[in-house]
Amino acid sequence: MLNKGRSVEELFSFFAEKKSLDLDHDYILSSMCTLPHSVAVRAHCMFMETNLGDPGLFPGTFSLEHLLVKRFGDLFHCPDAGGYATSGGTESNIQALRLAKALRHEVASPNVIVPASAHFSFKKACDILGLSMQKVPLDRDHRMDAGKAAEMIDANTVAMVGVAGTTEYGMVDPIADLGKIADQHDLFFHVDAAFGGMVIPFLDRPVPFDFALKGVTTVAVDPHKMGMSTIPAGCLVTREKDALNTLNIDTPYLTVKQEYTLGGTRPGAPVAAALAVMDYLGFDGMKAVVSGCMKNTERLIAGMETLGIPRAATPDVNVATFVCDQKRIPLPWRVSWTCQKHLRIVCMPHVHADRIEAFLSDIGEYHA
Amino acid sequence: MLNKGRSVEELFSFFAEKKSLDLDHDYILSSMCTLPHSVAVRAHCMFMETNLGDPGLFPGTFSLEHLLVKRFGDLFHCPDAGGYATSGGTESNIQALRLAKALRHEVASPNVIVPASAHFSFKKACDILGLSMQKVPLDRDHRMDAGKAAEMIDANTVAMVGVAGTTEYGMVDPIADLGKIADQHDLFFHVDAAFGGMVIPFLDRPVPFDFALKGVTTVAVDPHKMGMSTIPAGCLVTREKDALNTLNIDTPYLTVKQEYTLGGTRPGAPVAAALAVMDYLGFDGMKAVVSGCMKNTERLIAGMETLGIPRAATPDVNVATFVCDQKRIPLPWRVSWTCQKHLRIVCMPHVHADRIEAFLSDIGEYHA
Repeated sequence: MLNKGRSVEELFSFFAEKKSLDLDHDYILSSMCTLPHSVAVRAHCMFMETNLGDPGLFPGTFSLEHLLVKRFGDLFHCPDAGGYATSGGTESNIQALRLAKALRHEVASPNVIVPASAHFSFKKACDILGLSMQKVPLDRDHRMDAGKAAEMIDANTVAMVGVAGTTEYGMVDPIADLGKIADQHDLFFHVDAAFGGMVIPFLDRPVPFDFALKGVTTVAVDPHKMGMSTIPAGCLVTREKDALNTLNIDTPYLTVKQEYTLGGTRPGAPVAAALAVMDYLGFDGMKAVVSGCMKNTERLIAGMETLGIPRAATPDVNVATFVCDQKRIPLPWRVSWTCQKHLRIVCMPHVHADRIEAFLSDIGEYHA
Repeated sequence: MLNKGRSVEELFSFFAEKKSLDLDHDYILSSMCTLPHSVAVRAHCMFMETNLGDPGLFPGTFSLEHLLVKRFGDLFHCPDAGGYATSGGTESNIQALRLAKALRHEVASPNVIVPASAHFSFKKACDILGLSMQKVPLDRDHRMDAGKAAEMIDANTVAMVGVAGTTEYGMVDPIADLGKIADQHDLFFHVDAAFGGMVIPFLDRPVPFDFALKGVTTVAVDPHKMGMSTIPAGCLVTREKDALNTLNIDTPYLTVKQEYTLGGTRPGAPVAAALAVMDYLGFDGMKAVVSGCMKNTERLIAGMETLGIPRAATPDVNVATFVCDQKRIPLPWRVSWTCQKHLRIVCMPHVHADRIEAFLSDIGEYHA
């Protein structure tokens, strides 16, 4: 640590220099996060110091968290849903599996059934929780094979996971079929809609993925992805209002007696930010945002195919993938690659139509 | 979800109304968090959209995280320390125990030795990780009994925990003695200095609690407590630079190949905020802040005793506890209570000397 402090000028000139090393969002095509909406930033700053880790001190902010969960309950066809604001999909997924395991604590060697496409946070969750992770193969369209999932369920299976908007190919698993299987087996069924939860409801033809399906137990959704909130803003939504109480531990010296969250201190600022965007845009506004992202995705796929770069999949949400050589991507564009070495581009709200055209132009010239 | 959005005016008037329901910090005497420093807020806003979950996109912000860890390494007498910015003490403590368990994965029924005063996050960590938690009794001064801790170590013990600045009574466990015991048993020794890590180094007579002691393996410290950062800002510091790599899992499609963090998306804003306060104040500035908080703690204890309300302990850090009837606290002051029903007040930086006098005056009149 420095002995003498730095002046404000010196400090922020150093910080500005560091900030300039971060990539320009104009060239980031690889991220499932985006620039926060202006109302998100304003709400975040307004609630900067609030801590939901001790909600009795911040009853106003706590009521906003309650409202955020209610918004997702309404959106996901379960007005009486429970849940809480998490730090993102990883925490939501860990907590869902933690709950599934706790509800079946008599199982000595618990396992969880996940699609091969599941986000790596499930590997993390299983490692931490001591769960055996059983991977279900995908069908030709990169979706979880429901028939194979059903075959893999055994007496030690404490949960099944489906993904609504996969990270790599933007696919929605056959949640309706999986929900029926879960219902038949009376199995905990968690839907990871961290990405798709703020996309699918706003599509022209939404695929069923939420509590409208009887078998769905919990849904993870990340307002800090397509919800254009500040980070970290996730939400774990539960069909049963008080489901998470199973995870309660005692919390002496706080204004509440127990808590079920994974973290202790929890920032209220991104919760206010997430709610701000949802309430400012409303359903119609979000539909317009999603429609724009889907149009850009289609335009990108069409443009790439015109350049002789074929799609790797026809996605359900705004993630485009291509059969493309890594050498074909000109600087300073930042893209990503799937495990199968397909080029992957996420058409987030910050990736405006003109950026898609600029990218297509650059990649075209780079190859001409 | 609302169909039509709300106007900005309508939205923020609603938010302002909710915000007004939160408690005024002028009356919060119960929290280990505080109002963020102005340089923290400025830095937070500057780095609002940065996500350390994919550090390759934000190399500038990532270098600030590196620098924050370095600051703590220097402060804690281990310039080559490793570690990362967490969401707070709970994540740091979970990750430390996760690491200890992973390093001894051959132990079938692992246990962890913690003081009876350990923060409830250790109960959470043990539940999640499947560790048996062995509580060591405290001595008369509310400090962990090192002799009894030594007796409780067995072949299945994968870690021992000591606390530097307990949540309830503000005590520092005999870390030097515990470090020797850990060293003799070649045991993983985690020091939870979430609160004390930004107090003890700045005391006139600092108690040894960090890597200067050979036996200490990891230290948790929370800049969002006494470090006056924005939340969520914690740090897990490891003596060995690359210790956390043991926890690595593969992360396809990111700019990094593996990650060991608990969360996925990680906000860069509070990391910049934490570093901003440390670098703006420097060692001398932090010493002045801590000196003020300790003086206020002493004044509060003296003032309460004058009113016939005796101390419950003589604390090592700025947490004051009293033998006091719950009915003696006038509104709107917000205090907290320990498990043993002692009145507990944390003299954080936002609890200025005039607030202590106002509280003493109120409690005096309330009883006259």
